Amino acid sequence: MTMPLAKFDPKLDLKLEREIDVPVHLVWKAWTTPAHLKQWFVPKPWTIASCELDLRPGGIFRTVMRSPEGEEYDNSGCYLDVVPNERLIFTDTLLPGYRPAPKPFFTGALLLSPLGATGTRYVAYAIHGDEATRENHEKMGFHDGWGTVASQMVDYIKSGAVPA
Amino acid sequence: MTMPLAKFDPKLDLKLEREIDVPVHLVWKAWTTPAHLKQWFVPKPWTIASCELDLRPGGIFRTVMRSPEGEEYDNSGCYLDVVPNERLIFTDTLLPGYRPAPKPFFTGALLLSPLGATGTRYVAYAIHGDEATRENHEKMGFHDGWGTVASQMVDYIKSGAVPA
Repeated sequence: MTMPLAKFDPKLDLKLEREIDVPVHLVWKAWTTPAHLKQWFVPKPWTIASCELDLRPGGIFRTVMRSPEGEEYDNSGCYLDVVPNERLIFTDTLLPGYRPAPKPFFTGALLLSPLGATGTRYVAYAIHGDEATRENHEKMGFHDGWGTVASQMVDYIKSGAVPA
Repeated sequence: MTMPLAKFDPKLDLKLEREIDVPVHLVWKAWTTPAHLKQWFVPKPWTIASCELDLRPGGIFRTVMRSPEGEEYDNSGCYLDVVPNERLIFTDTLLPGYRPAPKPFFTGALLLSPLGATGTRYVAYAIHGDEATRENHEKMGFHDGWGTVASQMVDYIKSGAVPA
């Protein structure tokens, strides 16, 4: 089956591409295991207060981000496409069970491929419905934010915390 | 894998249940083949002016409805879950490729199961994000509309137009 994700449109969408020196299967584990994801998924000193993952199409993908001041922000959505060690597509336009969400914002995609023996080509997309939403996401700090957490994830994996 | 659809909530959702005397595999064909779907998918004298189906998660599900006066209404969305002869889940909250849609309204589901040797238990759900949207869909004539097209589909299948 061909890739189901919309073609990247620079007017509507955002993309982060990295070549990282940790292997694909550990990146997959870091993204799909709540105990690991909590450690790196938001730029420090913010934290992930809680996280719920049901790794299948229609399954919950929920994180609660906590600011240093203790304010919490709930991000609820569901997975759409789950191909271990290859791609993870999720959205906040649908809640678990595909129920339409109150505040649809974007569809996210993580694409992984091996780079040499132990590295990963890491590509993350944010797919939006219009230019204003893309601009808004960009102003919210998409590039810094997603870049920072990718670096945090690499450091976390390198610390040995994600078993092979 | 368990059923990925949200649990039916009578405050938020709508349901049509029918026992029909045409077999499951012909109902599936009637729903998933453009040439067949065009013949029954909107209450007459409305017609389906065109229809595009790409029967896989993230694939297009688009119909253009034409009023007797010639006005056209585009309904674009994508499939979420496709299990031949069992269930079809689709939504207009996401366009093809999972791009967030401009006017999210509902997620639809068709559940089919055999009833005796040649019949079908036919269940259609409309899953909404809030009570107001459910009410709106109900006022737009969900029950009459979906019931009428189910009857049209049964008549169409009984005419022999859908080959076994």
